[in-house]
Amino acid sequence: MNYFSSNFTLGILGGGQLGKMMLYETRKYDICTKVIDPNPAAPARLACDKFVVGDLMDYDTVVNFGQDVDILTFEIESVNIEALEYLEQKGKLVYPSASTLKKIQNKGDQKEFYLKKEIPTAPFTRYQSKDELVTDWAQKKKTFPFIWKSCTGGYDGKGVAVIKNKEDLIPLPDVPCIAEEMIHFKNELAVIVARNANGEVKTYPVVEMEFHPEANQVEYVICPARIADEVAQNARAVAHKVSESFEHVGLLAVELFQTQDDQILVNEVAPRPHNSGHYSIEASFTNQFEQHIRAVLNLPLGATESKVGGVMVNLVGEENYKGPVHYQNIEKIMQLPGVTPHIYGKKETRPFRKMGHVCIVNKDLNQARKIAEQVKQSIKVISLTK
Amino acid sequence: MNYFSSNFTLGILGGGQLGKMMLYETRKYDICTKVIDPNPAAPARLACDKFVVGDLMDYDTVVNFGQDVDILTFEIESVNIEALEYLEQKGKLVYPSASTLKKIQNKGDQKEFYLKKEIPTAPFTRYQSKDELVTDWAQKKKTFPFIWKSCTGGYDGKGVAVIKNKEDLIPLPDVPCIAEEMIHFKNELAVIVARNANGEVKTYPVVEMEFHPEANQVEYVICPARIADEVAQNARAVAHKVSESFEHVGLLAVELFQTQDDQILVNEVAPRPHNSGHYSIEASFTNQFEQHIRAVLNLPLGATESKVGGVMVNLVGEENYKGPVHYQNIEKIMQLPGVTPHIYGKKETRPFRKMGHVCIVNKDLNQARKIAEQVKQSIKVISLTK
Repeated sequence: MNYFSSNFTLGILGGGQLGKMMLYETRKYDICTKVIDPNPAAPARLACDKFVVGDLMDYDTVVNFGQDVDILTFEIESVNIEALEYLEQKGKLVYPSASTLKKIQNKGDQKEFYLKKEIPTAPFTRYQSKDELVTDWAQKKKTFPFIWKSCTGGYDGKGVAVIKNKEDLIPLPDVPCIAEEMIHFKNELAVIVARNANGEVKTYPVVEMEFHPEANQVEYVICPARIADEVAQNARAVAHKVSESFEHVGLLAVELFQTQDDQILVNEVAPRPHNSGHYSIEASFTNQFEQHIRAVLNLPLGATESKVGGVMVNLVGEENYKGPVHYQNIEKIMQLPGVTPHIYGKKETRPFRKMGHVCIVNKDLNQARKIAEQVKQSIKVISLTK
Repeated sequence: MNYFSSNFTLGILGGGQLGKMMLYETRKYDICTKVIDPNPAAPARLACDKFVVGDLMDYDTVVNFGQDVDILTFEIESVNIEALEYLEQKGKLVYPSASTLKKIQNKGDQKEFYLKKEIPTAPFTRYQSKDELVTDWAQKKKTFPFIWKSCTGGYDGKGVAVIKNKEDLIPLPDVPCIAEEMIHFKNELAVIVARNANGEVKTYPVVEMEFHPEANQVEYVICPARIADEVAQNARAVAHKVSESFEHVGLLAVELFQTQDDQILVNEVAPRPHNSGHYSIEASFTNQFEQHIRAVLNLPLGATESKVGGVMVNLVGEENYKGPVHYQNIEKIMQLPGVTPHIYGKKETRPFRKMGHVCIVNKDLNQARKIAEQVKQSIKVISLTK
């Protein structure tokens, strides 16, 4: 298949920042693209060959969109799976496949899949309703604390809650859910894995993640993670196994816990480029977006090693600001060496909204981490029309 | 000035591959852009906010285009200078400025400028016509060999000729020209210099260039150049002086000769991102396109050091092929570590046409150079409908 400067068309479901960054790579390769997103002002509305406004959860919309592309991929997992299944039946290539996505989209299915495949993960119980969960608790089969996760619709800290007592149960919605044992982890880690249709697999170095205590969004991602070599090797091996078990084609972000006794547990996965891999744009020999494109087009995968140490800082909307976005002190952080801001192109800020990220690279990782702190302390995502 | 996710608009004259690669950076920063190019299928037609088809040498077209942008820049120097001057008079910011461009656009003026500013350059004589040159030769004031250069319109080896004998004079057009002493150089070098309106200047490491013997186009660019430290320091100092002398704002590529006795002579300059800086996308802390955007927006300049060694190979159309492009063996080179192809998006190949480039990066520069040879030997830009 000739992808370059040809009539071949890659379809991308979702036009957010991940889609936007994917398009840097399709432009670099001159691969024709078609993007769909419900938002007419979506970040990926530019740089694709064709942009369509439409609902990704609507069967007919997705089927119509997919009919005249050659390969279909996505940048968000909340898409209509039945439409993807139909397109596959009609001979369309969908990567990751509908069956892989199905196993991932529902957190209950995802966890049961790990058990079946003997992939280490935190113990859990699955419930079809809130009633079932409350009954289990009343019968003392489930004790506090635990992590509650909605089986579907969870994203960026939504659909997840720490349940410490009876009162925490009250606001939970009545939806199918899982109750997961709370892991007192030493580190939260992630490994990006790429796999193409030929079955070639490459894992990226392990990254270390720090979450914002309130918003439950990643604040710093550090590559490589400052952990023992054998822990890193084990984490990459587990991630590799996850990708192969799912028969996943494309990029898979595997979020992991490192327990107090250095066991690796799979927390959850995202079947697409991921926030924890943004550092790769500046730090890696092949960035995660290029790697995703290589994987879904069944091209050889690129080297996953790092050129330099990398630290990623998310730019999220400051609390108490809502309105047209202003990046306060951006000029100040641009004076620091190895600092690259990425502005996603959302015109309005609101508290904790992901508006961009900053990557800090340095030959000395500790130096990068120090500069990242300066970045974090300087730049504020606010609105001047508060 | 708030450039990010605002209504600020950067106008770019020219929509070729340089404009296309500039747009990766304006998208990264979410800076609104408007691009003009005579070719409706220009590589930079996508990823800008607005694309206009028009002639860059036409006064009215350029004036109209520039009227509703906030800052104007260009990716090609063949633009209507009078239109830029008019826009500047109307208060529009043009970077690099019309007066800087004027000094560069005419090679006779450029050389005289170097003399005036005591910038080392090869000795030359300037002629208003072919007749003047031939008379000088007849009177033995000019002896073979020498380099003939048309004062205007030269680009990628056009408008340049090596004159070794009487017969070589015959095909020369009757245009203002210079006759330059032929330098038996040890190396052809280049230094990219960035300068913003505040006067902040940064130079990139020196690169080494190898030209294709027939097409007079760069074949390999190697960063850093394998030259003595003091020669490199001198080259960067000369390039720095050139940028300041021109009061240049934006990126300036300074092409240099290293003579047999290690003197540095300025060959010529390009007031824009340049082929000799493409390696920076993968190898540098700040790539040349991001640096150009930073410079013309008067933002702080980024670090110019390299993360890793880089070698750039141009992808030019093979001889004897003309038609829809096919990148033979591109999958093969993508298997090699640290290899990134850039496909400009020109649908038709022809002999020696610049169709793309490949960057090879490696922590060991010698290793990068070896892989670059493999790349060069594998990939061919051909047409299957010969």
